[in-house]
Amino acid sequence: MTDKILGVLGGMGPLASAHFMLRLTLLTPADKDQDHIPAVLWSDPRIPDRAASRLGNGADPLPWLMRGIDGLRAAGCEAIAIPCNTAHGWYEPMARDAGMPILHIVDATATDLRRIGIAPGRIGLMGTQLTLSMKLFQERLAAQGWDIIEPDAMQMERLVTPAIAAVKANRVAEAYHPLVEVANSLAARGASAVVLGCTEIPLAILAGPAEGLEVPVVDTIDALARASIAWARG
Amino acid sequence: MTDKILGVLGGMGPLASAHFMLRLTLLTPADKDQDHIPAVLWSDPRIPDRAASRLGNGADPLPWLMRGIDGLRAAGCEAIAIPCNTAHGWYEPMARDAGMPILHIVDATATDLRRIGIAPGRIGLMGTQLTLSMKLFQERLAAQGWDIIEPDAMQMERLVTPAIAAVKANRVAEAYHPLVEVANSLAARGASAVVLGCTEIPLAILAGPAEGLEVPVVDTIDALARASIAWARG
Repeated sequence: MTDKILGVLGGMGPLASAHFMLRLTLLTPADKDQDHIPAVLWSDPRIPDRAASRLGNGADPLPWLMRGIDGLRAAGCEAIAIPCNTAHGWYEPMARDAGMPILHIVDATATDLRRIGIAPGRIGLMGTQLTLSMKLFQERLAAQGWDIIEPDAMQMERLVTPAIAAVKANRVAEAYHPLVEVANSLAARGASAVVLGCTEIPLAILAGPAEGLEVPVVDTIDALARASIAWARG
Repeated sequence: MTDKILGVLGGMGPLASAHFMLRLTLLTPADKDQDHIPAVLWSDPRIPDRAASRLGNGADPLPWLMRGIDGLRAAGCEAIAIPCNTAHGWYEPMARDAGMPILHIVDATATDLRRIGIAPGRIGLMGTQLTLSMKLFQERLAAQGWDIIEPDAMQMERLVTPAIAAVKANRVAEAYHPLVEVANSLAARGASAVVLGCTEIPLAILAGPAEGLEVPVVDTIDALARASIAWARG
């Protein structure tokens, strides 16, 4: 039993943050309720669209993100997990003013790559167009020895972007085939693993038959849940 | 888009409240993040065991429940849903001091029975021994015309109670067969539907093949999620 309360800044999207809470619970070694980790989920789907803001045609999400962090701090939380890759584009200003640690989803991913034995070398990365262009994963993982390849522009436009939109609209099953096709094409280009760097992507890949996938994947939701458990138990 | 924030008092158990957040999201008509309902989940698995307290050998959960309600009110929530049937044994003192409405899971269940066309008459009820003995569902549903039958003492001891404990320990699949056996036996005794009056039971029944079940069931998690959506959109 731990008395440290985890804050979860969510709602981006709400399905991904609900799924994070489920995975946090299932990945925690527990025999009864009281063995689990106290957590407060701030699920605010009103947070302005991260992509629109970064592209210069939408409201700034930062004040909304900080409002959530303030609410989580007021609730007694001592660390924050954010189950949304794109929101990590605002990591530095959030971390500076949060008054508590924010577990970085890319660092959690690196820990998970090492856990499953993926040696430094070429790996694939899938995510929103914005996450890829923000270089969130590339720089942080390159610093630890991994060389990142990405889907090409046509795959992004025709397969990845529509599949992520389908998950956000609760149409999970139809997103499976396009996403698996892209993951396998990255493996064919030499990736020894593929990072699913958008919290919606694993939701779709979990909705189809496992044998379609020809490469190990790291689910950033699970990676962040494992990092959260390590924090709470550490 | 709604600006009303739903408070979810959870952690009893944490898997059930995470599942509630998932069902709340999936049952909400939405095309994008911003269509979903803002919500704060207070997931506090440290809340003392409800059964032990009611049986006179455990700490009182009420101060812990009120602490959660205070946290949710501070976060700006305007109504509360509690995805745990047993906790509704403390409904009256919570509702008196909450300062906002608490959606009652049994009223949500009655609405759901009417939605699927279950006429007044005999229905079955499954839940923890405590929920059954507290008569939470029986009195509130009897007042609306339903006559309740329950599993017998041996079924409770040998099938229902161990299955609920298995779900709380993340062993969901092994709870399927005993729970379906009990639901079908209630149908054989004349129940036209079975209320799954413990938030852990539907988690197990969803983990097995649908054809094993020979009677309509009302999932109290889904019923409470529908009532929450109606509140937020109303």
